[in-house]
Amino acid sequence: MTGWVAIAGLGPGNEALVTPEVTAALDQATDIIGYIPYVARVAERPGLNLHPTDNRVELDRALHALQLAAQGAKVVVVSSGDPGVFAMASAVFEALEQHLAFQETEIRVLPGITAMLAAAAAAGAPLGHDFCAINLSDNLKPWELIEHRLRMAARGDFAMAFYNPRSKSRPEGFEKTLKILREECEPERLIIFARAVSTPDQMLNTVVLSEATPEMADMRTVVIVGNASTKRVGRYVYTPRSAS
Amino acid sequence: MTGWVAIAGLGPGNEALVTPEVTAALDQATDIIGYIPYVARVAERPGLNLHPTDNRVELDRALHALQLAAQGAKVVVVSSGDPGVFAMASAVFEALEQHLAFQETEIRVLPGITAMLAAAAAAGAPLGHDFCAINLSDNLKPWELIEHRLRMAARGDFAMAFYNPRSKSRPEGFEKTLKILREECEPERLIIFARAVSTPDQMLNTVVLSEATPEMADMRTVVIVGNASTKRVGRYVYTPRSAS
Repeated sequence: MTGWVAIAGLGPGNEALVTPEVTAALDQATDIIGYIPYVARVAERPGLNLHPTDNRVELDRALHALQLAAQGAKVVVVSSGDPGVFAMASAVFEALEQHLAFQETEIRVLPGITAMLAAAAAAGAPLGHDFCAINLSDNLKPWELIEHRLRMAARGDFAMAFYNPRSKSRPEGFEKTLKILREECEPERLIIFARAVSTPDQMLNTVVLSEATPEMADMRTVVIVGNASTKRVGRYVYTPRSAS
Repeated sequence: MTGWVAIAGLGPGNEALVTPEVTAALDQATDIIGYIPYVARVAERPGLNLHPTDNRVELDRALHALQLAAQGAKVVVVSSGDPGVFAMASAVFEALEQHLAFQETEIRVLPGITAMLAAAAAAGAPLGHDFCAINLSDNLKPWELIEHRLRMAARGDFAMAFYNPRSKSRPEGFEKTLKILREECEPERLIIFARAVSTPDQMLNTVVLSEATPEMADMRTVVIVGNASTKRVGRYVYTPRSAS
């Protein structure tokens, strides 16, 4: 039996957003590896070994996947959203680079619906023009780089999607983000707070920048900032396709 | 019968990347509206009206969808990829803004796997850190804005994904893009040309910036430019999760 690793995106939460490609990989798997709440989304069945692990052990988890595959296991590493966007795919390739003994392992990345696209769809079309995706967590990069990227994105008049805007261990980061946005953008700029998108807990809150407060975001929130042309029509928010 | 409009993303081409949510909407539809090759991806069945139209009539198509829904039709507007990323969702909201008589219409956006995420997955994880999506077509925006955004994205050390890099009517745009990248980035910067991703015609070509030529891209190509840390491991390209 030849083992493999598939790094699969489960989408933002709604099972109707899981691609058939991912479902097929889960059906073929012998082992599922991932963060506890994502592994919990995979149905148990005889012959399937579930390996849920806690947060912040991405490299250990990735190495475990490569080791199991080398022993013949068919391993699916599960991420929420898309595995290539602030998720497990990069961690697996980092582990591969550190352990080149596994370089012949078959590794596939199976894309998924990433949170910002589900959030944008729920709100209308706020990412309908050029945009940036920025992870606001400073666990793996210095705050100065986040600030620089926020300013470059704002000066380029990109719409922006923020992942991991705020956590208990980083309560002040999103407050600083709002301050930077207020220096770079007009007060009327639209901001969408999209929480638990596609799940029964989904909440959407669209405000103007001058009214945005840090408490509007938490770790289950994706924040979308429009560009200077983003507007409302009825209950929707969209960014026009054209720009001058 | 109450009509509705769903703007649905068919993903990059492989039917295994179409979400069950989109499949369900297609099964319920009475009318399918979209660009000819996307409508051709929908199976014909009795009671389903197909309305394929040519390129560059997005607003006409959007208004047609709203008109049919007002008459009770269940309309799916099909896009490739994700409808909210350089596709039909913004066009529908633009049409709604111009024709507010339709503002009570139920409009849903159904997300899909957008080309850059499928391309990134096929290559490894080149978008594993902060990134930008830029449409290189100057049909709807001035070239000066594209150039400005390219420079801001490069100076922010974002990875970048380019949609519509090159067409017969705009043969020179991608050449100018490469020139700007060479001014802003080091010659060793990795660039992935991903053509017809997820289809039988898929071709991936990763080169360094100094070796990239305009002919490497066409309208079926998504181009991904790594950030300064993007690297190869084995046959994969990935961007590390951390940055300094």
